[in-house]
Amino acid sequence: MRSKTFVMAAALALADSAALADVAGKPPTMQQVLDASKPGDWRVPDPENTLYLDLAAGRVVIELAPTFAPLHAANIRRLAHEHYFDGLAILRVQDNFVTQWGDPEADNKDKARSLGSASKTLASEFERTIVGAPSFTRLPDGDVYAPQVGFSNGLPTARDPKAGKTWLAHCYGMVGAGRDNGVETGSGAELYVVIGQSPRQLDRNIALVGRVVQGMELLASLPRGTAPLGFYEKPGQRLPIRSIRLASDVPASERTPLEIFRTDTPAFGALTEARRNRSDDWYKVKAGHIDVCSVPIPVRKPPALAKP
Amino acid sequence: MRSKTFVMAAALALADSAALADVAGKPPTMQQVLDASKPGDWRVPDPENTLYLDLAAGRVVIELAPTFAPLHAANIRRLAHEHYFDGLAILRVQDNFVTQWGDPEADNKDKARSLGSASKTLASEFERTIVGAPSFTRLPDGDVYAPQVGFSNGLPTARDPKAGKTWLAHCYGMVGAGRDNGVETGSGAELYVVIGQSPRQLDRNIALVGRVVQGMELLASLPRGTAPLGFYEKPGQRLPIRSIRLASDVPASERTPLEIFRTDTPAFGALTEARRNRSDDWYKVKAGHIDVCSVPIPVRKPPALAKP
Repeated sequence: MRSKTFVMAAALALADSAALADVAGKPPTMQQVLDASKPGDWRVPDPENTLYLDLAAGRVVIELAPTFAPLHAANIRRLAHEHYFDGLAILRVQDNFVTQWGDPEADNKDKARSLGSASKTLASEFERTIVGAPSFTRLPDGDVYAPQVGFSNGLPTARDPKAGKTWLAHCYGMVGAGRDNGVETGSGAELYVVIGQSPRQLDRNIALVGRVVQGMELLASLPRGTAPLGFYEKPGQRLPIRSIRLASDVPASERTPLEIFRTDTPAFGALTEARRNRSDDWYKVKAGHIDVCSVPIPVRKPPALAKP
Repeated sequence: MRSKTFVMAAALALADSAALADVAGKPPTMQQVLDASKPGDWRVPDPENTLYLDLAAGRVVIELAPTFAPLHAANIRRLAHEHYFDGLAILRVQDNFVTQWGDPEADNKDKARSLGSASKTLASEFERTIVGAPSFTRLPDGDVYAPQVGFSNGLPTARDPKAGKTWLAHCYGMVGAGRDNGVETGSGAELYVVIGQSPRQLDRNIALVGRVVQGMELLASLPRGTAPLGFYEKPGQRLPIRSIRLASDVPASERTPLEIFRTDTPAFGALTEARRNRSDDWYKVKAGHIDVCSVPIPVRKPPALAKP
């Protein structure tokens, strides 16, 4: 590691904790917060709500969000269970916007793949009532787009208490269900993931259905499409999807064990504070603020499986 | 174009203006603003402050920011003029953060390439006085990090009127000069570009020196490095830089002609408004707001050179 010259983002280096251990008397860094975390600060995602998107280059793990998009999550579970996505393709990569996948023949009645027992359209699910929503950890620094922002169930969310509504926020790594012009035209058969600056104008206009918790780099580093909207111009440019499976449909030996940092704990508050005000020496001016899409939600191998 | 199913981001489709032409009586879309623009709404970047970063895959065009980082811009011009960068490499691609390039041997006294007549370190240039700064087009929706945000000379900027300071904002595509732990240790010999959610915590901590105005996808779609901080683990993974030249050092026939949308005009105000409130039918809830890193700054071929 060329730490001398390239110290720029040392605070981000999860692998680099030794270098930060001597910062005595200062507020903890994110790494120190994680090092001090307890087993209860982490959670294991439900295999029934975890998708494995397998590409030739590796596996992308997506956690679904049934508390915000229950109909979409159920439909996507059904599609995955019935192997709908296997052999479909990544069709679109628009720089600084989204990577999108689905059936290249979806618009061709004669060639489109059947959705099986899944629904072809669903009610909108762009927002939900605050009443009954999972607990909300509010961020202190406000937001350009919504009255309140924070985290619910490990997902970036926005809120309008006056309207009594809450919704998922379009941050990097969030996964949504494409739709046609009508609000009830999505099904989850066509999905996209945010790969750039958070396109918050999409909030409340389309159903976010989950978040990539591992393997995001596989979807963000793809060649950009050169047709309008970033679609690949030629069929041969599309990237095949080997399969999308529910973790619960995969034998235990083929699952990807991981734990996700909880967002409803004092430890998460400490992590947020460590990112609002970086305490390592490289930072000369502390930001003193953070936006909802810049708060990391760490993921780790379960300690029992991690190398000593 | 599979417009029926994939209408999600039609408002972004610069190539798709025909589809939007019938939105009579509504506020204009961004495309309509651009279609109605006059020659004076565009500017030609100064060849003396334009860099061509040439990779095997194509050319990245960077506009330097001498009004915010004059010492760095001058040093980078000198480095480019003396062919310092030619044959160096992209060393680091950290997902959702930065792509960085420079001399792989920079830390090795015996092997590091000479900076020639350029300075090895420079004064900081992380912010500047508002007095004497170029004109500022302020955005109306506020910011999580700074008292004011907007655009100066086509660059996203932040301001603190009480402190009398202004600085460039770390948005997607912004280019900065890596530094060591001391504030005066950067030179511009090692550069990075933002490829993900805007890392605004870097603002006022490092010198931003310009912005990628074309070819950003070439730097954003690279394989992510797997060593700490996203460095490539093996030398063979590094991506060679053919050359970085000043446009003014390149024969006219090899230059990339382009025009950039001005950010100090009524037309830019109309563009911003078109993005704050999208008028095409796909959007059911208008955001009503925009953050400084989500405002596009369009670039085009000079009309005389564009296909009819």
